[in-house]
Order: sequence, then C-alpha cells, then structure tokens
Amino acid sequence: MSGQEYDRLKAIIDDNLMDFLPCIDIKSSFLREAMEYSLTAGGKRIRPILLLMACKLAGGNEIAALPYAIACEYVHTYSLIHDDLPSMDNDDLRRGKPTNHKIYGEGMAILAGDGLLNTAFEMMYKDMMLYFDNDKMLKQRIRAAHAIAKGAGVRGMIAGQVADLEGANKQCAKEYLDYIHLNKTGALITAAIMAGAYLGDADDDLMCDLGIYSENLGLAFQIRDDILDVVGTEETIGKKTGVDEKLCKITYPAIYGIDESIKIFNDYIDKARDIMDKYDEKAKGLVYILNLLKERVA
Amino acid sequence: MSGQEYDRLKAIIDDNLMDFLPCIDIKSSFLREAMEYSLTAGGKRIRPILLLMACKLAGGNEIAALPYAIACEYVHTYSLIHDDLPSMDNDDLRRGKPTNHKIYGEGMAILAGDGLLNTAFEMMYKDMMLYFDNDKMLKQRIRAAHAIAKGAGVRGMIAGQVADLEGANKQCAKEYLDYIHLNKTGALITAAIMAGAYLGDADDDLMCDLGIYSENLGLAFQIRDDILDVVGTEETIGKKTGVDEKLCKITYPAIYGIDESIKIFNDYIDKARDIMDKYDEKAKGLVYILNLLKERVA
Repeated sequence: MSGQEYDRLKAIIDDNLMDFLPCIDIKSSFLREAMEYSLTAGGKRIRPILLLMACKLAGGNEIAALPYAIACEYVHTYSLIHDDLPSMDNDDLRRGKPTNHKIYGEGMAILAGDGLLNTAFEMMYKDMMLYFDNDKMLKQRIRAAHAIAKGAGVRGMIAGQVADLEGANKQCAKEYLDYIHLNKTGALITAAIMAGAYLGDADDDLMCDLGIYSENLGLAFQIRDDILDVVGTEETIGKKTGVDEKLCKITYPAIYGIDESIKIFNDYIDKARDIMDKYDEKAKGLVYILNLLKERVA
Repeated sequence: MSGQEYDRLKAIIDDNLMDFLPCIDIKSSFLREAMEYSLTAGGKRIRPILLLMACKLAGGNEIAALPYAIACEYVHTYSLIHDDLPSMDNDDLRRGKPTNHKIYGEGMAILAGDGLLNTAFEMMYKDMMLYFDNDKMLKQRIRAAHAIAKGAGVRGMIAGQVADLEGANKQCAKEYLDYIHLNKTGALITAAIMAGAYLGDADDDLMCDLGIYSENLGLAFQIRDDILDVVGTEETIGKKTGVDEKLCKITYPAIYGIDESIKIFNDYIDKARDIMDKYDEKAKGLVYILNLLKERVA
C-alpha cells in the first residue's frame, strides 16, 4: 500500500524530470546529453519524493510543488557527477553505469554538473514568476527555494563534501564523522523535506516533527552507504565497493565496526519512525522510505 | 569624472564582497579560504559595477541592489575557477596569481566554484525574504535573480563554455564563434545589466537601449580578450598569453587577423556608446566602461 504511493510519486518525477531542462542550442549539444545521461541513470528519486510526501502531509498540492522536487533531484545529480570526478572520489561506476566523466570527459562532466545546479535555481525563479498574483504561495516558494539553496550550499552539502575530502587519510573523531554525514547527505534530504513542508504550508508542530524525522533519516542514509560500501557487492549496489577503505575515509564501520554501525543505523530509523507515529496513515509514505532504507542493511 | 564613479562603485563592491559569504564551520576551513582567494585576486568588478550603474540609470537604489551585484561577481568568479581547471583551459595563472587549483588542488577548486555559484543563488533568495512586505520590490528582485540565473545557465554562460570546449581543434564558422562569444562572456554581462534595470524598475525604452548596449559590450569584451591573448604579455594581462592558439581555439584574430579584429572591436564599442548618447551625463559611467575596455586594445 505505502509502496504504491512511493511508486506513484516516482512515476510523476520520472515522467516530468526532463521537462524542466531548458532547450539548449545544437552548438552545445553534448551538454544536454551529458545532463540527461546522469539524470536518467536510474536514481531512486528519494529527495523529490520526500519533498512531495512532506508537502502532501502538510496539506499542500503535490503538482504545484513539482518544480521544487525536481530541482532537488537536479542538485542531487550534479553532486553525484562532481563527487565521482577523478579529483574527488574517482569513481568509474555509478548505479551500474560508467560515471559521467568516463563517457563525456572531465571538462564536460564538470560543466554538466554546473548546468544542473544552475538549472535547479533558474527553474525555481521561473516558477516564482508564475505566482506573482498569489502572495501566499509566492512566499512559500521563496522559503522553499531558500531551504534547498541553503541545504545544497557551503553550510550544507558542499561543506560536507569538503570535510569528506579534507578528512581522507586523517584520524578523525566521531564528531567530525557526524559533521560529514549531517552535511554531505543529511542537509539536502532535510532541505527537501523542509521545502515540501513550506510548500504545503505546514504548521510549527509538523515542521518540528519533520525536522526530527529528516535529521534521523539523513544520518541513517549515510551510515547505510558506509555499511554497503563494506558488506555490499558491485552487482547489488551498482558501484565499486571497498572504496572508503581504499581512500582511507572515515566511516561508521571504520570507527564502530559493522555490528555496532547496524545497531546505530537501526536506532536512527526507529527514531524517525516513532516521530511519524501520530500521523498514522497520512505518514505511511514517509515510513515506507525508512523500510526501503532497511532492506539491504538489517 | 566618470572614472570617479567607477572607482566609487568598485570600492562599494570590494568593501562588501565578503559579507555575503556564509559563516562556514571550521571543519570545512579550506573551502572559505579557497573561495576568498579567488574573490580577492584583483578583479575589476565590471559585472557588479554594470549592474549598479544600470540600476541607478533607471532610478533605482544602488545599495538595495548590492546583493544582486555581488551575486554576479560570485558567479563570474566561480566560472573563472572552473574555466582554469586542467580539464578545461588548464591555466596556471590568473590576474598574475596562481590559479585556484594550483593552490588548493583540483577537488577543492571544483568545490570552491560550486560553493560560489550556490552562494550567489542562496543570497538572492535570502534577500527576497527581506522584502515580503514590499510587493513591487519583491517582484523586481525575482525578475533580477531570474535574469542572472538564465545568463549564467545552460542557455547562457555554460552553453558558451561548452561550445568553446567542443570547438577547440575544430574548423568553425564565424556564426559559431559569435555563439561562443555571446554566451560565454556576453550572457552574464547582459544579465547583470538587465538585473540592474529590473531592480531600478526601468521602463521599456531604457530596457531596450540597455539591451543594445550590453550585447555590443559583451561582444567587444570577448574580442578584446582574444586580441590580448595574441598581442598582450603575461606581465600586462596577468595570465599566460598565446593560450588560444596552443589549444587551437577559434578566435577573432584567428579568423579575421589582428587589424580587422580591432576594427570589429571598435565598431561594437561605438555602437554601445551611440545608444547611450541620449542619456548624457546619467550614462557617463556606462560610457567610461567602454573607454576602460579600449585602453589596452588601441
């Protein structure tokens, strides 16, 4: 039942994902192709789906929220393209396919990432101009876009990526590891959920509960990635495994061991589920996301 | 006299340039340093100054326009950092100093660029939230931000950069060259001027005249860069020269020769000056920018 809701929203995202890419002149033809390549490489669309679910839980209209949901997926996709570059994680494989720079070259991959980030913001400004006659919805949109920009930015995702890059080969404390996790993965997940809440005009109580849900989900998300990098196989997770250890990256399994990491992961998932309890059926989609995360870990 | 106006606005930009960078956690310390390094490497601040001049010519308040002016400089600086990367133009020197990746490494340079682009949009959303009680100014700001995003984006600056990258080592027609110029350099210059016009609430006539001014200025700007790459020295222009020829890039001097290129450059400058004639003293700053461009070309 709740899986149906996820599938329905994923289909909406997939069906509309390309419609917000601007037409690009034939002279820059590979740019469009490179952006499309990574957008259609089989993502689970977790961030945009979370945005739509949070918006609906707050009582908002999911179709009106679509540009913001898709902007989150563009931001997420840009971050993957840049993360995979030789000067970052140097990954050849992502979701079972060659990474963007392996197909299009490093220069084009950097520009395709830049293009996706820029388009995310451009499309949100453009959407705002459609709401010049609706003061309340216009302000919701500006707040949502600001949340996404902040989550993606130098106090969010980019800060986490920098700490991750600087932390490689270092002996780091648990606090530093949580900083990376909260920012690198958590910030954009939280931003997507908060943006959905703004767009649905959530009240303070729901805003607070969604904040707790998203923080725990974000931490669980990154710990899961750390765990799968150790226990997963290239076939099951679609990218090289054992990468973190090779790059001497600090991870949960490296600090706590696998068993304790799984326990911590489950604690975060439980906390996120507990806070959604009171919303019962209305939060079934958000709870389903937690189950989805657990599938390959527990 | 008009030089004084330029100097005054440049001082405003320089004095406020860092104030819009968010506080960044100590754990991502090099990110802030890398962004600051390129922001303070001695730019002429042409784009933000053009924005403020256009805003003032339209009757607007230059201080209220400052976040948008500085956002343009952040976007411009990010584009320089990414352009200089080994997988793009592979430049070691910019404005007489080592390029960002020579100091901080490629990974950090990519993230510093990403951070500046993201911050430009984040600060404009944040600024908009300060104008929730002023409907007219709020809409001006959204239009201005959209113009900047579009100029910076995949139908603007990024499209030009992609065409430039794809055009290297190719035999290309004049039309292709103008496409690169109009987008790679012209689009953000035009965007800055149009954003200033929106922020100043320019009428249709002024909007149109500023459009003509900016298109001609943008083309002159890039031709000047092409010419200086041939006739300039590393000492006078602060970066390696002869780069275009080495990379087999298509340029005005390569297609037209130096003398004809200078003639075309002067024609564009004259057209931009002519359209500003009717504004007399009020456009003196915009005319001064044209003279500034001519200084090293002849």
